[in-house]
Amino acid sequence: MKFVTFQKEDGSIRAGWMKNDQFVIDMHEASNGVLPKDMLSFVENHTFFLNYLSSLSDNEKGVYSLENVLLNAPLPNPRSFRDFYAFEEHVKTARESRGLEMMPEWYDIPVFYYSNHLAIKGPNEAIVRPKQCNWLDYELEIACVIGKEGMNIKAENADEYIFGYCILNDWSARDIQRKEMKVGLGPAKGKDFATTIGPYLVSKDELEEYRVENGYDLTMTAKVNNVLLSEGNMRDIYYSFAEMIERASDGVNLYPGDLIGSGTVGSGCILELGTDVHRWLEPGDEVELEITALGSLKNTII
Amino acid sequence: MKFVTFQKEDGSIRAGWMKNDQFVIDMHEASNGVLPKDMLSFVENHTFFLNYLSSLSDNEKGVYSLENVLLNAPLPNPRSFRDFYAFEEHVKTARESRGLEMMPEWYDIPVFYYSNHLAIKGPNEAIVRPKQCNWLDYELEIACVIGKEGMNIKAENADEYIFGYCILNDWSARDIQRKEMKVGLGPAKGKDFATTIGPYLVSKDELEEYRVENGYDLTMTAKVNNVLLSEGNMRDIYYSFAEMIERASDGVNLYPGDLIGSGTVGSGCILELGTDVHRWLEPGDEVELEITALGSLKNTII
Repeated sequence: MKFVTFQKEDGSIRAGWMKNDQFVIDMHEASNGVLPKDMLSFVENHTFFLNYLSSLSDNEKGVYSLENVLLNAPLPNPRSFRDFYAFEEHVKTARESRGLEMMPEWYDIPVFYYSNHLAIKGPNEAIVRPKQCNWLDYELEIACVIGKEGMNIKAENADEYIFGYCILNDWSARDIQRKEMKVGLGPAKGKDFATTIGPYLVSKDELEEYRVENGYDLTMTAKVNNVLLSEGNMRDIYYSFAEMIERASDGVNLYPGDLIGSGTVGSGCILELGTDVHRWLEPGDEVELEITALGSLKNTII
Repeated sequence: MKFVTFQKEDGSIRAGWMKNDQFVIDMHEASNGVLPKDMLSFVENHTFFLNYLSSLSDNEKGVYSLENVLLNAPLPNPRSFRDFYAFEEHVKTARESRGLEMMPEWYDIPVFYYSNHLAIKGPNEAIVRPKQCNWLDYELEIACVIGKEGMNIKAENADEYIFGYCILNDWSARDIQRKEMKVGLGPAKGKDFATTIGPYLVSKDELEEYRVENGYDLTMTAKVNNVLLSEGNMRDIYYSFAEMIERASDGVNLYPGDLIGSGTVGSGCILELGTDVHRWLEPGDEVELEITALGSLKNTII
């Protein structure tokens, strides 16, 4: 299922799912109050709720035309946000652009940093270019949402801890990032002003038909002002989400609603492409990320 | 006031405050249910609740002997956790120990990283040394808790966004940290297994008598197995909490319940002292951090 969070014309915000790509269903309304109003509560008890859902007969309640609602981030309030660095090509090319060689440690362990889980935005939301940022960039990523609490999860069991997947754009202020990282921490301010996810949070069963060894065969693209700039595939990931979950949960509890980003797919940002291919983003630019089966996530810079 | 969170003999966990250093008051019980059961809810509405508190007459309800309760982290569930790098001596000495010079960018901007706000522990809680960690360290820090939502907060107005202060121990697996940071992100796994705060969350008015130009005149010490290893003072901080808040809130919303660590005070960890002064921490070691007016935070390694 394609889960969504949306705002109705009366201003209320509800969780639900897509129907025939033209309608959204308000899960709380359609279930006469059995299902919750928000997506985090659904994820936290999703085994019970999915079971209930399968018994819910098709009805006419809580059906809204997509045109009459505004899609928000499907999970507007993740419990936490870890972003990995799992595509080899991105790391290599981004370092080459700064005259740096690949670091051998990258091949030993999947590494990540914590970012700002309180600045998650959704499709259609405007992205404010930070003051003092002249090098604004997008990052084309895929993310998973944890569905089950656990610690010391082995990669071979990690799949059962995943609720679903979504597109993620890890907006990056490259000039701010470069400066703060010289101090040896982070990134923090280079990344914490906005992260967009959506439009859907797709339950993992929907990706089964695309499964390959290290993940899924999903085309990932980014367009700026309708010009295709980035094109990659999720199957090229070096560290699988299972390996990332093993790393993240080592000695640490993961919780339902934790958001885990893959890191940027090869060619998936301007830093990699080079500013001779495209200038840094400016107010007015529209960035559209697409991933097979996960939809299209569009945002405009202001 | 010295706010606390504590577990009663019946297992229930409640927020409250210290009375005469011998008793804790259950705020919910003492107020006949007007004040909340948990500290985050209190912080979120603290202006109203503090006002109500001042009208609450001394009564006998909800009073527990300190001996009959177990103190938890005063704010067990902060909304987020940023850790800065604000003491010059710590940064200089830690870099010298790795043969590195001071980076000029450190003097331009206060930098921080996001850490795991879902692994906050309290006084008396055992700290599990991570698997594969042989270089376990403590870090002696002071932290503030945000009391009011805001973005683009100027340093001169930052004080009104602070609810209070506490001791913070940013436990560090130096060997894991060193390896992951070679990849150019983080720290993450080197720090995310545990952070302890407490024993109290002290409202800022209690520190007024210690105020100096850049913060407060507060002695900070760390003992391992009752041997004094670290001694510093909060007044030596290079970036004030006001400057950290200005940086953190630049283009980003801060929320009540956000936790902000200062970074380690000079001499406040084994990395700085050197292992000729003290070996890395081992199971059985007891670490006690003390800060004037903020109490003593004790934990044992297992």
